[in-house]
Amino acid sequence: MAQLVGNLLVAQSGGPTAVINASVAGVIQEAGRHPDAIEEIYGGCNGILGILNEQIIDIQEEKSSVIEGLKHTPAAALGTCRYKVDFKKKPERAARDMDRLFQVFEAHKIRYFFYAGGNDSQDTSHKIHEEAVRRAYPLRVIGVPKTIDNDLPHTDNCPGYGSVIKYNATTVMEVGLDVGSMATDDGSCCIIEVMGRSAGWIAAGTVLAKRGQAANPPHIILLPEIQYNMDALLAKVKETVDAYRYCIIVVGEGIKNEKGEEIGADKTRLDSFGHPVLAGAAEKLKELIQGQLNTKTRTVLLGYAQRAAAHYASLTDVTNAFACGEMAVRAAVDDKSGFMVKIVRTTGADGSVSWSTDLQPLADIANVEHMIPRDWISEDGYMPSQKFVEYALPLIQGESNPSTENGLPKFVTLQKVLIEKKLPPYV
Amino acid sequence: MAQLVGNLLVAQSGGPTAVINASVAGVIQEAGRHPDAIEEIYGGCNGILGILNEQIIDIQEEKSSVIEGLKHTPAAALGTCRYKVDFKKKPERAARDMDRLFQVFEAHKIRYFFYAGGNDSQDTSHKIHEEAVRRAYPLRVIGVPKTIDNDLPHTDNCPGYGSVIKYNATTVMEVGLDVGSMATDDGSCCIIEVMGRSAGWIAAGTVLAKRGQAANPPHIILLPEIQYNMDALLAKVKETVDAYRYCIIVVGEGIKNEKGEEIGADKTRLDSFGHPVLAGAAEKLKELIQGQLNTKTRTVLLGYAQRAAAHYASLTDVTNAFACGEMAVRAAVDDKSGFMVKIVRTTGADGSVSWSTDLQPLADIANVEHMIPRDWISEDGYMPSQKFVEYALPLIQGESNPSTENGLPKFVTLQKVLIEKKLPPYV
Repeated sequence: MAQLVGNLLVAQSGGPTAVINASVAGVIQEAGRHPDAIEEIYGGCNGILGILNEQIIDIQEEKSSVIEGLKHTPAAALGTCRYKVDFKKKPERAARDMDRLFQVFEAHKIRYFFYAGGNDSQDTSHKIHEEAVRRAYPLRVIGVPKTIDNDLPHTDNCPGYGSVIKYNATTVMEVGLDVGSMATDDGSCCIIEVMGRSAGWIAAGTVLAKRGQAANPPHIILLPEIQYNMDALLAKVKETVDAYRYCIIVVGEGIKNEKGEEIGADKTRLDSFGHPVLAGAAEKLKELIQGQLNTKTRTVLLGYAQRAAAHYASLTDVTNAFACGEMAVRAAVDDKSGFMVKIVRTTGADGSVSWSTDLQPLADIANVEHMIPRDWISEDGYMPSQKFVEYALPLIQGESNPSTENGLPKFVTLQKVLIEKKLPPYV
Repeated sequence: MAQLVGNLLVAQSGGPTAVINASVAGVIQEAGRHPDAIEEIYGGCNGILGILNEQIIDIQEEKSSVIEGLKHTPAAALGTCRYKVDFKKKPERAARDMDRLFQVFEAHKIRYFFYAGGNDSQDTSHKIHEEAVRRAYPLRVIGVPKTIDNDLPHTDNCPGYGSVIKYNATTVMEVGLDVGSMATDDGSCCIIEVMGRSAGWIAAGTVLAKRGQAANPPHIILLPEIQYNMDALLAKVKETVDAYRYCIIVVGEGIKNEKGEEIGADKTRLDSFGHPVLAGAAEKLKELIQGQLNTKTRTVLLGYAQRAAAHYASLTDVTNAFACGEMAVRAAVDDKSGFMVKIVRTTGADGSVSWSTDLQPLADIANVEHMIPRDWISEDGYMPSQKFVEYALPLIQGESNPSTENGLPKFVTLQKVLIEKKLPPYV
């Protein structure tokens, strides 16, 4: 393949993270170093959804200080979407979408396309790459990894993950000190619910708060990969409260009982509108502990706060996310297409870790979910093992320390100057 | 009164904060500057509860680096309690407790007593002071203010408050960017529940995230002081989603409907053990919004995480908390007793704010709750006014930036070397 000359389009997809904008900053800053190949730099608003509607902004209208500020700004500065070009469930719609995408690419002379996202987005990138080959449309497509869930295969870790576990582990340390300092003979529990419907990477990451001390919180970590016997779990909670007078439990939102049912989705209870109450895993567990052990229990539900916590992001994560964006552009102008950037870890003889980036064919990525190896979790299922700790600890090193303004983090927003539309509206 | 010579006892009470240990550090470091008056420096474990049981530690056994580290360590390093010497409800028990306290003071030659806490703890300090006067027991008692609720009277603000609103406002900014970046035509809501059962200071503080822009989140702040008509509230949510495609709502846990009932305490629903389900204000509101507006809604429940978030504490708050501890000791060795330290704000002609400390008689403090003035809240009750912003903004200035170790904040714990007990057990 020969080096293409034309315009670049970058977009973001799926749930935002604290560092997905750092990847976009990497794409944009690297693109500026290749003026021979890349003419205009465009951003798609709200991922594929905006591109289908020709909602495309001119990145060169943005101040370079704003692009620099993206490194420390959480969420998706370009906007994101959950929209999927779904050939399985909606083949006709998907075929029309694909036609439209290439009309948009053609109309705006897009030669370089970068999509930052998780499994679904890598699948979309893969399909776009294959379609370009089929149509002999000159396009370089590189996927940029992103997901707090850390479930993309082949990459050492996913940008966003290091930051979410740094924030969550910090929260566990702080809440643990708080609850521990109130612990008197009565005993008490606190349940911290974190994200993770099917993979337990996020919940597992809070093990770092223990700093190797069994007495330190979290005392129990519940992962969606394991099916828990609730009586055994309650016995474990009681044992912990008896030993330390308090118990900090971290629970992934998707944890399951022995029958494999999500305990948070209690379909037996209806709200005032007749809908099933989705109590949440932590609330359900609280009910059990208060009801059966008579132990005071409080909950913390971090929700979106955990994946957006740029004020305490991992510098390692920010740096890797940025490097993934840079690598994507370097690969594309080097005529590569149909790859996802992956992060590679090198561990020195002294145990020090260094990071680099490489490429993996998108065909190897799409729709493969990378789970925690079973031997990285203790036999009883209540705690990740030392192998997990060795994996996760390097990911939280360093603080990104965004600058502040009047006591709050200084985040940037894009002006979003739209380029002129050239096509009829998409219906 | 003449200057006393003897031992110092400091203790902590009530819900912990991110900066209550900074006040204890202030007491300890200032005490070291008065060797002519203060012989031994003791800490009471778990407040009054531990003192009654002679659980007293020798602070001079702690490393000075650990005392310094207290400035950035959340929760109550000495342990805390909810125990109240309650002459109203349990007069006999209270009288016995008071006798025992003075036996402990006598046995360990306590001449200086400092109690860091909120309304109840100031009340306890006041009673101990009065009792010392009545008994002609040589004791100096100074209360140190502490409460994230910010509801102590006479002090400009309460240590702990600045830090909780800095963290909460940061969380609102971050979650707001996250939800905003996912907003497509469907619209969505996120409800962030914060502490505050009767006073809305904490919820109100998140107005700082707006940075003066109406379009910025939070779009609606619900305070426990106001009784809300739920239909009008839903109309306001719909109006916001129509305007911005998303709506961030901050709700104080104790918010009430038009009848003055807490909406989070839904007594009509029973859990599987027959107890009323305390759904929480955010969950209840989510049910209403999803049910009546059909708008996707998620919740964040910060719980204990907000008051323990030392990793992003306000430097102003840390500095004031420390100064309150220092001032307490200076006042006591200056023969003052029966006062609480208060924080005084001085606003210069250029608008710059400086802080100092002064004393207020404990008799003026005990059991008085300081509420947000009604004219600091918009007429419709959905947003604090500019007057509130001018009050709150100086409280979040500066970051305490605790040092880190292996990617997580470096917090300290006291060794807690207990001094020898001299009394029979208290039963």
